[in-house]
Amino acid sequence: MFGATGALAAARGKHDIVTFAFFAAFTGVGGGTLRDLLIGAPVFWVARPGYLIVTLVAAVAVWVLGPRPFRERAIAWLDALGMAAYAVVGAAKATAAGVPPLSATAMGVLTAAFGGIIRDVLAGEPSILLRREIYLTAALLGAAVFVLSQWAGLSSLAAGLAGFAAAFALRAGALVFNWSLPSFRGRDDGG
Amino acid sequence: MFGATGALAAARGKHDIVTFAFFAAFTGVGGGTLRDLLIGAPVFWVARPGYLIVTLVAAVAVWVLGPRPFRERAIAWLDALGMAAYAVVGAAKATAAGVPPLSATAMGVLTAAFGGIIRDVLAGEPSILLRREIYLTAALLGAAVFVLSQWAGLSSLAAGLAGFAAAFALRAGALVFNWSLPSFRGRDDGG
Amino acid sequence: MFGATGALAAARGKHDIVTFAFFAAFTGVGGGTLRDLLIGAPVFWVARPGYLIVTLVAAVAVWVLGPRPFRERAIAWLDALGMAAYAVVGAAKATAAGVPPLSATAMGVLTAAFGGIIRDVLAGEPSILLRREIYLTAALLGAAVFVLSQWAGLSSLAAGLAGFAAAFALRAGALVFNWSLPSFRGRDDGG
Repeated sequence: MFGATGALAAARGKHDIVTFAFFAAFTGVGGGTLRDLLIGAPVFWVARPGYLIVTLVAAVAVWVLGPRPFRERAIAWLDALGMAAYAVVGAAKATAAGVPPLSATAMGVLTAAFGGIIRDVLAGEPSILLRREIYLTAALLGAAVFVLSQWAGLSSLAAGLAGFAAAFALRAGALVFNWSLPSFRGRDDGG
Repeated sequence: MFGATGALAAARGKHDIVTFAFFAAFTGVGGGTLRDLLIGAPVFWVARPGYLIVTLVAAVAVWVLGPRPFRERAIAWLDALGMAAYAVVGAAKATAAGVPPLSATAMGVLTAAFGGIIRDVLAGEPSILLRREIYLTAALLGAAVFVLSQWAGLSSLAAGLAGFAAAFALRAGALVFNWSLPSFRGRDDGG
Repeated sequence: MFGATGALAAARGKHDIVTFAFFAAFTGVGGGTLRDLLIGAPVFWVARPGYLIVTLVAAVAVWVLGPRPFRERAIAWLDALGMAAYAVVGAAKATAAGVPPLSATAMGVLTAAFGGIIRDVLAGEPSILLRREIYLTAALLGAAVFVLSQWAGLSSLAAGLAGFAAAFALRAGALVFNWSLPSFRGRDDGG
């Protein structure tokens, strides 16, 4: 839900309603679709179209309401909530399916980030992979905290809350303080 | 078949024959491949390489014949036939696999449009998602008409013809009259 | 291993370590992932995260060591070794899964080339599909030689060596002599 809303908001631009809904659907369910394909589970929204309906209703609502409520800042914060939730949900579904911890962590990152990456590639815009922001890193932290907490014996709920909090806190810090990691080229210059 | 031909034609450009065939194959079987992955069916062309052979023979034929016969207009009409056929075939395969109506409609749209979208993304060209044309909308109409007609009790053949006719008619209208849907930004300007 | 190393090297640029590792992982396992999805096999790295660990360790090593050892030429040769190995391994896994020869050849090409193509698309750079080099063609030759040799009765090892040698020799020739195939536009100009 959070993810659909936040991600959807980013699907703005000069699109008609059908293309708009297409982008929203890719963003909302793209990451989870890839995760399900990779772990060999039935793709979550195919047999239960409720997910698709939520995404499409949200797309229509956004389109009808118009762009005014969409201040960049509010979108970024909604998206941070969605990213943190997806990172944990993605990793949780993978561990529940018997996937080893490292792969489950990767599934959390893919679930959180891949929908938005695909949307940006399809839209011809630079994705979060090319913007020097702490986004993938926050998803990675959240998924890793969840997987490690669960492995250390915490309940799924406690591990999920810990992972969500870690991912959201790191992303929030990045949004507030413009944190970024050193780049490869940066090393080059320094060395 | 139509789809392979029409879509293939669009895979022109400064490519050698192998890359050309690669683009043709992606366009021809890409949408159906994604559909099969999503509904959990064996990917249609893997066990029966006849589909791949048709695509490759068509690619070689086009490449050898050269670009002269490829007037933009003729390509667009062939592509419209292919799109309408793929929208119905994609939705029909999904309903036959027990997929619910809304998801089956989405499968029709993906089958019809995804091959071309992938081709354009790989070629670094703006895809139909970015051109303000009625294309996705026509595929959506065709798939929806098919699914609704079948649900209303029509035979698969009758529903298929209805869906095909609806998709093709809408796309034909868009080609002839340059129809387009209002855009999100358009609303912004107006409100 | 070769593939991970060579391909990884190309994932340079202004990325932080997490994005860098993400690109390296896509390049290293992307092609094989698509192959496994298409032939309906469990995705090779999900249950056995060793592959992912190798890719990530290599990414960290490259990132820490810095870009100096990465002369373009050395990367291209490592990548040629990786491409030749992946073309054969991809086709071999497909034939072992009972996939017909033509589709198995396509799987070899996808395994060898798709990881790099996805990386370039995600990075917003022109992929090998757009550069007029003999790359796909070399992967195609290697996969075809393997499939034909095996079909002609050679052992998998002999067929694999033949395919590897063919792919690497053609790619090496292209690197040394700047070979390229005639383009479609070239024909247009000529005819």
